Amino acid sequence: MKSYRKELWFETPSRRAFINITRQVTACLGESGVAEGLVLVNAMHITASVFINDDESGLHHDYEKWLEALAPHEPVSQYNHNQTGEDNADAHLKRQVMGREVVVAVTAGKLDFGPWEQIFYGEFDGRRRKRVLVKIIGDYRQRPALVSIALQRGRGPPMPALRDCIRLQERKPAALPRAHPQSKASLWSGL
Amino acid sequence: MKSYRKELWFETPSRRAFINITRQVTACLGESGVAEGLVLVNAMHITASVFINDDESGLHHDYEKWLEALAPHEPVSQYNHNQTGEDNADAHLKRQVMGREVVVAVTAGKLDFGPWEQIFYGEFDGRRRKRVLVKIIGDYRQRPALVSIALQRGRGPPMPALRDCIRLQERKPAALPRAHPQSKASLWSGL
Amino acid sequence: MKSYRKELWFETPSRRAFINITRQVTACLGESGVAEGLVLVNAMHITASVFINDDESGLHHDYEKWLEALAPHEPVSQYNHNQTGEDNADAHLKRQVMGREVVVAVTAGKLDFGPWEQIFYGEFDGRRRKRVLVKIIGDYRQRPALVSIALQRGRGPPMPALRDCIRLQERKPAALPRAHPQSKASLWSGL
Repeated sequence: MKSYRKELWFETPSRRAFINITRQVTACLGESGVAEGLVLVNAMHITASVFINDDESGLHHDYEKWLEALAPHEPVSQYNHNQTGEDNADAHLKRQVMGREVVVAVTAGKLDFGPWEQIFYGEFDGRRRKRVLVKIIGDYRQRPALVSIALQRGRGPPMPALRDCIRLQERKPAALPRAHPQSKASLWSGL
Repeated sequence: MKSYRKELWFETPSRRAFINITRQVTACLGESGVAEGLVLVNAMHITASVFINDDESGLHHDYEKWLEALAPHEPVSQYNHNQTGEDNADAHLKRQVMGREVVVAVTAGKLDFGPWEQIFYGEFDGRRRKRVLVKIIGDYRQRPALVSIALQRGRGPPMPALRDCIRLQERKPAALPRAHPQSKASLWSGL
Repeated sequence: MKSYRKELWFETPSRRAFINITRQVTACLGESGVAEGLVLVNAMHITASVFINDDESGLHHDYEKWLEALAPHEPVSQYNHNQTGEDNADAHLKRQVMGREVVVAVTAGKLDFGPWEQIFYGEFDGRRRKRVLVKIIGDYRQRPALVSIALQRGRGPPMPALRDCIRLQERKPAALPRAHPQSKASLWSGL
């Protein structure tokens, strides 16, 4: 079993924002070389979310409005948590609605997604540096059974055809582009 | 590490529905042969959920009523997302409350469930074909340590008793019945 | 791939409570010996949650008040589920907001957490014995590549320095303290 770990960093200029991080997670999967397994993507901070939904700015506006109705930021005095000197109690509530993490299947070296699935970082108390963890576990593409048996039995170096086969199977996926500038972000100036 | 993948397909006659998919997921686990690991079950569409709760029709009615109060379908014009020509913005919101996915432990070849846990597909924008992904990773039942050592040291063919033991351990679980007709579904005619 | 399973038991004196279980899960991870992998922690009952947030009693009060507003316990007759003789329909709803499970990365033998992440058991229908499942899958710490190659090629017993290295790498983490008395709990007397 192989494992891979990377932190993605964010600092949103507004209190709240939704940022599409699908390309960054795809790049992590390419770096990991994992072909079959699971990807965990989670907010490392408790006033932020990672969730999967649609990359459509109208919907992001609807989420913003809906979450403000379910857990309003103002008046900050309505929350006991804010008596500690914080003003972000609402962010702790919003994050529970949208979730901390997603787990995504990896199949044949790709995120195993339906047609519209995109991964988002949901920020509810931004304007400071915060992190998302990408953890990938799984296997590289498996050797064909024949090659595996030949090697185990110590029959000497595999024949050319087999060697090519091993090289093909064990090759890590070509490096994908590294973390990209955020392709798209829906930002709201904080209250 | 072994991995297994299957898509389950749904087309509900109503806009919203809850469908118990526990038997289908159990059948997938049987097909996979995995004895120790994790099962990921996720909606592949962003207006549907997979969640674990009780198979009780009164509760499903309560969920339906509660989700409609939290994120009403009508008036469709209240959502910016619906300006794109869609009428399903509420479904994107309801899905966040109920969740995209569940991760279930596999222990001794079974879904490691408490007494009332059942897996549901939650449809919030149906009347079209949609999918759920079942991804399973883990190991077959492990060989006993003694047999494993004997084989590694190349001591020749194992003794009959050991051979039987290996056969016993390496046998895949007997095939479970394939995907069943949906055992039970709570449907609501869409607005 | 190694796997580990443990049940944590709870019986809260009040209907609703939040209990920090981070130390118990950390102890499970120590017992498992897993260095790289994933931990799944889930409620085994469908009127309880496992979630990750802040260990701050003011926030827990805010969650309690907010969840009661979103899904009130009284009047119990407002829920169809309660016509079955239950009075806990609200608990099934609250659990969906807070979630059934968390998946946490394991890196270098530790829960791979951001600065304030703590795991909580959220009880919404207590005063009886209920369980949480901890399932861990992953690998022990890997041998360094050099040692691994030497062993595979059958070059005889490794040199002392290498042998020490193997011992170091293969040693299970020292046993951590077993499940602790609950360090902290926020309890509300049930309605």
